Amino acid sequence: MKIILAPDSFKDAVTAEEACQAMAAGIRRACPDAEILALPMADGGEGTVQALLAARGGKLERTSVTGPLPGQQVQAAWGRLADGETAVIEMAAASGLELVARADRNPWHTTTYGTGEVIRAALDAGCRKIILGIGGSATNDGGVGMAMALGGRFLDSQGQSIGLGGGTLSDLAHIDLSRLDPRLQDIEIIVASDVTNPLVGDQGVSAVFGPQKGADPDMVAALDRNLRQLATCAKKDLALAWDMAQCPGGGAAGGLGAGLMAFLGAKLQAGIDLVIEETQMVKHCQGADYIFTGEGSLDGQSVFGKTPQGVARVGHQAQVPVIALAGQIGEGAEALYEEGVQAIFAIGRGPSTLEEALAETAENLEQTCENVMRLLNRHANN
Amino acid sequence: MKIILAPDSFKDAVTAEEACQAMAAGIRRACPDAEILALPMADGGEGTVQALLAARGGKLERTSVTGPLPGQQVQAAWGRLADGETAVIEMAAASGLELVARADRNPWHTTTYGTGEVIRAALDAGCRKIILGIGGSATNDGGVGMAMALGGRFLDSQGQSIGLGGGTLSDLAHIDLSRLDPRLQDIEIIVASDVTNPLVGDQGVSAVFGPQKGADPDMVAALDRNLRQLATCAKKDLALAWDMAQCPGGGAAGGLGAGLMAFLGAKLQAGIDLVIEETQMVKHCQGADYIFTGEGSLDGQSVFGKTPQGVARVGHQAQVPVIALAGQIGEGAEALYEEGVQAIFAIGRGPSTLEEALAETAENLEQTCENVMRLLNRHANN
Repeated sequence: MKIILAPDSFKDAVTAEEACQAMAAGIRRACPDAEILALPMADGGEGTVQALLAARGGKLERTSVTGPLPGQQVQAAWGRLADGETAVIEMAAASGLELVARADRNPWHTTTYGTGEVIRAALDAGCRKIILGIGGSATNDGGVGMAMALGGRFLDSQGQSIGLGGGTLSDLAHIDLSRLDPRLQDIEIIVASDVTNPLVGDQGVSAVFGPQKGADPDMVAALDRNLRQLATCAKKDLALAWDMAQCPGGGAAGGLGAGLMAFLGAKLQAGIDLVIEETQMVKHCQGADYIFTGEGSLDGQSVFGKTPQGVARVGHQAQVPVIALAGQIGEGAEALYEEGVQAIFAIGRGPSTLEEALAETAENLEQTCENVMRLLNRHANN
Repeated sequence: MKIILAPDSFKDAVTAEEACQAMAAGIRRACPDAEILALPMADGGEGTVQALLAARGGKLERTSVTGPLPGQQVQAAWGRLADGETAVIEMAAASGLELVARADRNPWHTTTYGTGEVIRAALDAGCRKIILGIGGSATNDGGVGMAMALGGRFLDSQGQSIGLGGGTLSDLAHIDLSRLDPRLQDIEIIVASDVTNPLVGDQGVSAVFGPQKGADPDMVAALDRNLRQLATCAKKDLALAWDMAQCPGGGAAGGLGAGLMAFLGAKLQAGIDLVIEETQMVKHCQGADYIFTGEGSLDGQSVFGKTPQGVARVGHQAQVPVIALAGQIGEGAEALYEEGVQAIFAIGRGPSTLEEALAETAENLEQTCENVMRLLNRHANN
């Protein structure tokens, strides 16, 4: 009996790795001889570094970089895979919203500069491929800070650097990438994101994500104008064959998605698809009997682009049944059946508060997996 | 695919029959061609009449009888099975605690007289076998009222009837069963009970169940003395070969268990075993692929003598896997594995209050059964 464990984290409860441990313990109780492969998943957000390190081996590096606020220093963790060539970076480690106290959140000032510094550290370490999970950003600077950290020059009409933050982009007159770190030309940058919003407009990053980063309506409008100016300038100076303002996904991480594409030639990919590809999940699933996936909450809204959906597709392709577990199953979760999920179970043991349920997540996961496996194992033995 | 549904009721939420309906709906969604047999279960308490009517066919009868309080009239429902010979009676329908307002509960006065009247109605209907589920009683009269309704005479030292209620037994001097309904001699009475307490003493009915029926400590002591007197009198007048005071199970339903044995020669049987036997569950399970059982709450304390345990034993014997579902799974429920339960699932969909969980029981049962069946059905198709 070969079992693949491919859960995401259960938010506010257990990491994907902890979920794997609990699942494995439950499965072993029902089926001591099971061959279990843990592939903790992520969808490009938090946990992406751990997921790829777990699947591919490697080392967690820490680099001291600029935080979201200029002058702030943070220790950003990133992963260097065992192949020695691939870096895995989460933008939130350097430029994430969680790094800024609630009162200090202000996308007028926050910058992706630190994310650029982590990319530079990966280049210094000899990496030739960079996988960049973007999500949970504190920023709205269109990736300009990131590009600055790598040698890009963003100048006002006087030829002076406009400085850091989404607020200064109104001064932008000219983009000069001629001094960009030359090592960037030879490397591949793949961006994992589950955002499809464009850079500007009603569905743009400022309007949709600005408020949660601390922008009031006036600031949202100003930030949106600033990003339009960035796109106009990029069109003029970078000879882009596509429109930075409107490209789907450009609005990811405060416009870092658009910036990575425009300034570094990065490619965007759906986060879970990238993680599945990089963990070589399809290959690992060959010959497996079952795949277990899961996430804190599953419902119709959360199904699409999330880990259980991606894992279900792999299972479907490999003809291995996928069992999805969740702390909470909401309306519309049955949509996962269409994607190839064989069965969905909530892990709770009865009525409880959210706090109790979160605290019992590991134990409940273990017991639910034990019971699912007790059912499945019987068949294997018959 | 042949599926047996054998749940108990989910207390305060759905009856066993409603549980069967929800389970069947979920199973059909996953497996439209499944052959489903619903055998709603009971453990001798509430639901026993419905369970046997569902399994054996028959008719619900209603008889107007004395309620738990002398002078109270109630409509007691009981079942006459399709064989025309078997009556199924729940003592609680005539003499149950739920029939008495909380303020009026008083085991000094309450009587099993009405239960005797229902037995008489069954005799009048030509029944030759009586299955009597005892549990949920309001009484503490040792079954004296029941025997009086059938012609038994319970006399004081002056040769006068002592009257009704647990309180008058102190006057008992002589028991005369010579005028007992003669039809009782030719019939079989089987009592379904899950109580093993004796009639008297620290573990006796007055001490253990008296308080919940409205007795204060002084009344508990007096009721216990009264039942001792009943046992002493029975020994003297009835030439019993066993001790009415100490016989295990005699303390069921306020001593009605002991009274039925002593006065009518009834046999006691564990409720779930009797229901399993009378529903011919073992026969029905031949050739079944799965058995689903369940109950509102499952834990180590509630496992023994309850429906899921009994059903598990049938499954074990018939080599059919049993899946147990519950609204709440507590500590020690794993004991059911030893009994033959293959897997246990809680039916909730996430954190919730008890009220929400109770209200969603049918829907949650349906969805859980659908998902369990989606797992199992895949095997059947492979």
